[in-house]
Amino acid sequence: MKSKALVLLSGGQDSTTCLYWAMNKFEHVMALSIDYGQRHHIELESAKKIAHIAKVNHEIFATSIFTDIGDSALVGNGDISASHKSSKDLPSSFVPGRNILFLTVAGALAYKKGITNIVTGTCQTDFSGYHDCRDNTIKSLQVTLSLGLGKDIIIHTPLMWLTKKETVDLAISLPGCGEALAYSHTCYEGQRPPCGKCPACKLREKGFKEAGVEDPLLRLK
Amino acid sequence: MKSKALVLLSGGQDSTTCLYWAMNKFEHVMALSIDYGQRHHIELESAKKIAHIAKVNHEIFATSIFTDIGDSALVGNGDISASHKSSKDLPSSFVPGRNILFLTVAGALAYKKGITNIVTGTCQTDFSGYHDCRDNTIKSLQVTLSLGLGKDIIIHTPLMWLTKKETVDLAISLPGCGEALAYSHTCYEGQRPPCGKCPACKLREKGFKEAGVEDPLLRLK
Repeated sequence: MKSKALVLLSGGQDSTTCLYWAMNKFEHVMALSIDYGQRHHIELESAKKIAHIAKVNHEIFATSIFTDIGDSALVGNGDISASHKSSKDLPSSFVPGRNILFLTVAGALAYKKGITNIVTGTCQTDFSGYHDCRDNTIKSLQVTLSLGLGKDIIIHTPLMWLTKKETVDLAISLPGCGEALAYSHTCYEGQRPPCGKCPACKLREKGFKEAGVEDPLLRLK
Repeated sequence: MKSKALVLLSGGQDSTTCLYWAMNKFEHVMALSIDYGQRHHIELESAKKIAHIAKVNHEIFATSIFTDIGDSALVGNGDISASHKSSKDLPSSFVPGRNILFLTVAGALAYKKGITNIVTGTCQTDFSGYHDCRDNTIKSLQVTLSLGLGKDIIIHTPLMWLTKKETVDLAISLPGCGEALAYSHTCYEGQRPPCGKCPACKLREKGFKEAGVEDPLLRLK
């Protein structure tokens, strides 16, 4: 397929897999990362390293808007101040709609660059209260962006219905992806080598174990 | 109606009218402005002044993301660099999807504050290539945000089908709005008192003239 794609690259396992999926499918690929004040800066460092290995152009846009939204919600200012906590499963610092915002920024950049295809690693299989990772949200957003940009945009979500094992299977089948995964970041604790104990490390470990593959990340230990 | 609303306030005539429309309709109202590197800083100063007069809480969030997108599109970087100019009517510095981005930020803030209603002055009547001001885009976005936030959000667009004359009629009917309009900013040239010659000044003048009302802004001259 002779066409261009923009991949949202967080530096994690899923978006790294998506980058290589896109490189396998599209003729020209670029990556976009958003620096929104991630808990660990190592995620962006991973994204940089992976884009470098993959030899794709990489843009990093910074925004403090999530911090602003979080701060505003925590600060009391009259009748309108009440912080709203809609789910007992989500932390109060959680800012909803993050994926919508990222994909809208990706859509605007794609439009300016003449790119039709956006690729994101959002996945409903490990949905845990993040409604903007759900398939219905993404499909609705594709319609919204296409209407709002006045030009058709396609949001590809190759991992939407895959288990972690299936994502590993996919990654291993993509040339070069295994090597890049050695630099992807997953650990919630921001550790490298990973702590191996946090829920994110455990989920990653389970996927590789079920796929019967050694995690390239662990070779660095 | 006992409920809360968040108004996107640019500091212009339309969003000022929307602010007073919301104050007339909802029990609690707050305003949000986005500092995205407007050509003239006087717009944000107007927004501040108007929120102060209206006695509503006012948040200003800054983001450089539009500058980043614009710069990225202008910089050559390999095969993916070509700046895409889809319409001869829009300047190359134009970043599409701005309203989608603003409303998504508004949606996230509204969610955190327990607010269901968002009010914006977007208007299809003076549509001129900005697809994200169109009614279809806004209605699709309402669905996207409601899905993505996991909670119903209503985007109110009281000016969507009004002519400039009808917007003036509405503004004059809302208590206090006339006074506030004296501080609203419209002039493309960033002048105050307004230049009276640019397309924006001319359009505003036409609306007030057709409504048979003196523009409060001109009393300041």
